[in-house]
Amino acid sequence: MAVIGLGLIGGSVLRALAARGHHVSGYDADPATRATARTAAAQAPANARWHVTATVADAVRDADLAVVAVPLPAVGGVFDELASLAYVGVVTDVTSVKGPVRDIALDRLRTGGQSLATFIGGHPMAGRETSGFTAADPRLFDDCAWVLCLEEDGAGLRDWIELAALITGLGARVVPATAEEHDQAVATISHVPHLVAAAVAARIGSDPLAGTLGAGSFRDGTRVAAARPELTAAMCGGNAEAVLDALDAVLADLAAARAALDGADPITTLVPWLTPGHTARHEWPPTPGETADLPARADVLLRLGRVGGWITSVADDGRTVRAVRPA
Amino acid sequence: MAVIGLGLIGGSVLRALAARGHHVSGYDADPATRATARTAAAQAPANARWHVTATVADAVRDADLAVVAVPLPAVGGVFDELASLAYVGVVTDVTSVKGPVRDIALDRLRTGGQSLATFIGGHPMAGRETSGFTAADPRLFDDCAWVLCLEEDGAGLRDWIELAALITGLGARVVPATAEEHDQAVATISHVPHLVAAAVAARIGSDPLAGTLGAGSFRDGTRVAAARPELTAAMCGGNAEAVLDALDAVLADLAAARAALDGADPITTLVPWLTPGHTARHEWPPTPGETADLPARADVLLRLGRVGGWITSVADDGRTVRAVRPA
Repeated sequence: MAVIGLGLIGGSVLRALAARGHHVSGYDADPATRATARTAAAQAPANARWHVTATVADAVRDADLAVVAVPLPAVGGVFDELASLAYVGVVTDVTSVKGPVRDIALDRLRTGGQSLATFIGGHPMAGRETSGFTAADPRLFDDCAWVLCLEEDGAGLRDWIELAALITGLGARVVPATAEEHDQAVATISHVPHLVAAAVAARIGSDPLAGTLGAGSFRDGTRVAAARPELTAAMCGGNAEAVLDALDAVLADLAAARAALDGADPITTLVPWLTPGHTARHEWPPTPGETADLPARADVLLRLGRVGGWITSVADDGRTVRAVRPA
Repeated sequence: MAVIGLGLIGGSVLRALAARGHHVSGYDADPATRATARTAAAQAPANARWHVTATVADAVRDADLAVVAVPLPAVGGVFDELASLAYVGVVTDVTSVKGPVRDIALDRLRTGGQSLATFIGGHPMAGRETSGFTAADPRLFDDCAWVLCLEEDGAGLRDWIELAALITGLGARVVPATAEEHDQAVATISHVPHLVAAAVAARIGSDPLAGTLGAGSFRDGTRVAAARPELTAAMCGGNAEAVLDALDAVLADLAAARAALDGADPITTLVPWLTPGHTARHEWPPTPGETADLPARADVLLRLGRVGGWITSVADDGRTVRAVRPA
């Protein structure tokens, strides 16, 4: 197996795979990161080491899986390199949009009109408050939701199941979803919250008194506004269509709150307006409910994902998965 | 001194005043709370005890300051009781809106057309994730911003300065502001964030996949949506005019983000849109900058509040205050 890109997520994947005894090679475009990763490997237990290679070619030479863990703008270049190497294994990624990356994969992972590798989009919903290989943690994915994209027609299902088995083995909850479903969901739970946080935070720029009075609700509600604008813009702008839909839903809801505030009895009318958000947040995060062994079929898996369910393991024969529905 | 209402804030004020050696009596409408506060008093160090009385009249009998620490809907009733007792000391409160409470005070703290007590609206911006006297903490106000309302004309300035001296003595940063300035500021940094959190959280109610993928930005961005809808509605609805203004500013800003997302190059256009919020959040919370002794004049104090400054102490003669401007 190969991991291309050794930042927080790639480095953590590398370490997590090595810790489970997988033979894994890592590459990063930055020589300093490679040196750090190489030094860390020498300090790891003998049965949980990894290799650090000087080129992508060396990393993927004997690999049947390539995890592309570079930032979105660099993904296309890595795919080009894999295509030029005529790499024929499975390729997955860890970026936060899945439709655009699938389109890049379909376009680039081919040569002479022929598709080479099988691409399966992935997205571990792991915290990112720190970055770089030095922050990499083999336990980063414990109980973390990790989307693996699947299409209705079940194309590439066998490889999907194999990858799901590997990733559940890292402790993650594998969530099946189409690329479009993923992109809509992350617009709702990540991209729009970033925009809203920026809009709320900006208000104190012209009102220092408000800044001085800011306490818990301002602190938490605007935390992600501290992220670098370039990263947030790339994330939201790279998923513009889904973010527009999710933003419009929030704007429509806030317009209703505005009407309530502008009405005769705002206190009474705001209670039912606030209740759906209260209920949803009160029941979040979802806790594991009913467990079942389900057949490894695309339609069954996608249905599981749509009700908020996930996979905790794959049977040895790959024919069934252990599925959990939220309580 | 008397504290009426012994929940988290009132109980903490009681304990903080007693810990500084002030003679203080407390009353709560709930007999069980009174019993808890009485038991706690017996366990406190001999030089930091408080009295718990069975009536408001007993609590305020020898008090020259009454801190009304009951929820907003109960404030008017307590003011009525103080008026019926012909209480003539200083009255302050700790609720989250200041214009409406000032109007109630002007209306109720009088008898025979004659104003009795001096009312000074207050609002400590202290965390409220726990509640009740058992959560009361004499250190709750350490470095906490505590608004004390002041009018341009300087009415009641001498009492204001005395109260500011007392409250800075509890470790708080006293922030001078008019009631209107306060209500606009808390609309911006607390009330609108509550509405936005509810609107964002509500989206996962109809999208379980999104709920399963929710991670850090959803968790923090929607935390306050878990508050009871009745409390949030009372808070926002009780400050409807200022909340409408602050909400409109956020909605206008989000409309600009929407236009950027809908444009030809959302990634590029979102960067400058995100930057003001990033900058404001990055520089928050304000850190202490320049310190100066300022004359205790209403215009000077209000100007300090408007630039985000606060008071850390009052000179013994009450003529100057030690003021801090944000860095």
